[in-house]
Amino acid sequence: MQQVQALLFDVFGTVVDWRSGVIRDVTAVAGRAGAPLDAARFADQWRAGYRPAMDLVRSGQLPWTKLDGLHRRVLDELAGEFGLAGLPAAELDWLNTCWHRLDPWPDAVPGLARLRQRYVLAAFSNGNVALLVNMAKRAGLPWDAILSAELFRRYKPDPQTYLGAVELLSLDPARVMLVAAHNDDLSAAADLGLATGFLPRPAEHGPGQQANLAPTREYTVVATDLTDLATQLGT
Amino acid sequence: MQQVQALLFDVFGTVVDWRSGVIRDVTAVAGRAGAPLDAARFADQWRAGYRPAMDLVRSGQLPWTKLDGLHRRVLDELAGEFGLAGLPAAELDWLNTCWHRLDPWPDAVPGLARLRQRYVLAAFSNGNVALLVNMAKRAGLPWDAILSAELFRRYKPDPQTYLGAVELLSLDPARVMLVAAHNDDLSAAADLGLATGFLPRPAEHGPGQQANLAPTREYTVVATDLTDLATQLGT
Repeated sequence: MQQVQALLFDVFGTVVDWRSGVIRDVTAVAGRAGAPLDAARFADQWRAGYRPAMDLVRSGQLPWTKLDGLHRRVLDELAGEFGLAGLPAAELDWLNTCWHRLDPWPDAVPGLARLRQRYVLAAFSNGNVALLVNMAKRAGLPWDAILSAELFRRYKPDPQTYLGAVELLSLDPARVMLVAAHNDDLSAAADLGLATGFLPRPAEHGPGQQANLAPTREYTVVATDLTDLATQLGT
Repeated sequence: MQQVQALLFDVFGTVVDWRSGVIRDVTAVAGRAGAPLDAARFADQWRAGYRPAMDLVRSGQLPWTKLDGLHRRVLDELAGEFGLAGLPAAELDWLNTCWHRLDPWPDAVPGLARLRQRYVLAAFSNGNVALLVNMAKRAGLPWDAILSAELFRRYKPDPQTYLGAVELLSLDPARVMLVAAHNDDLSAAADLGLATGFLPRPAEHGPGQQANLAPTREYTVVATDLTDLATQLGT
């Protein structure tokens, strides 16, 4: 752990609270349209559609598509189902960028600020570069670099994303730690020799969340949140 | 100009003073070795060797090599010529990373801080990602993103670097401005439809500099330095 020099952060769920942000913005859009809906269900279905859309890219059925584009594919399907199909185009465009306007968990900015004093901090996300840049500016996330999956035109958990980030940092894998609230992401990183830091985000999926409440294998560090991680990493 | 949303910055010479930084660190190394040398000539020759080394990559004679690697090729040649060939390896390793430890011009950090309030700011340099990240952390350069040539495995002025950066920002070229102290860089960007901002750095090459003292074609903005650019861009 002493040898770690850079921290890669999963973003959606680990650093920012996507569910509350999507609920907030779809509620605003539906309110303006006079078309009330179950905003929590909308948010959950939008997020649930992301993995199958991404898998179309990962399997080669769809050419490389930025996450903004995948979000839009799912949104266009959901809009009909939730009575938003008649929205003005500008409203749908704005709603699709709600993923750029997500709020950080309360511990995220203070934790990252402390960690940044000693480590290189990079966003390491399937979010595209513009999404992550806009999010960081709005939320005050103090990244040293944006190492988006878009740089590699591969989505996590493709090994080329983890190894690509490590190569761009000019470090050995053991000197780079992936920090995430998701066991599948951490497991892929651990298999490639990266250090790993798990923290649970029990409210990520709202009440009743079952997955990722605890580590499912041994990680380099297990923390309660990002300020606890900062403490455990000596900052 | 109203439509510009993101600013790409050339770094070496435009944002940081490479010549003084190289002189400082090679003087320190030579002093420790008891091998005095003409540090200014050393710095100028090291920088002069960068373009031919890069052209070996651009022409395909050398496979993709990070700028740290190109710097090392030139350094290993110069070390013999300047009486540093017997240096301990750790000293040569340290000297090669002097490009990570360059100081900004005095107007750079205040100018960038103002510009960042309204624009997305990205380092856009032939420097590799780790070099640019280390430099930014040490010097306090407030980048929103590091859009290194390394991301494209092409060196400026290859069109794919400018267009690649624009694509990662999800913007049209006209909404992106290249800011640089070098006419060749700006000319390549202008030919691809980017906005352009020139500022002279008359001390970049030390006393007697002849090139890049003034714009050689029409640019979107011509400023005296980065604080003047901030003023002209309304920040």
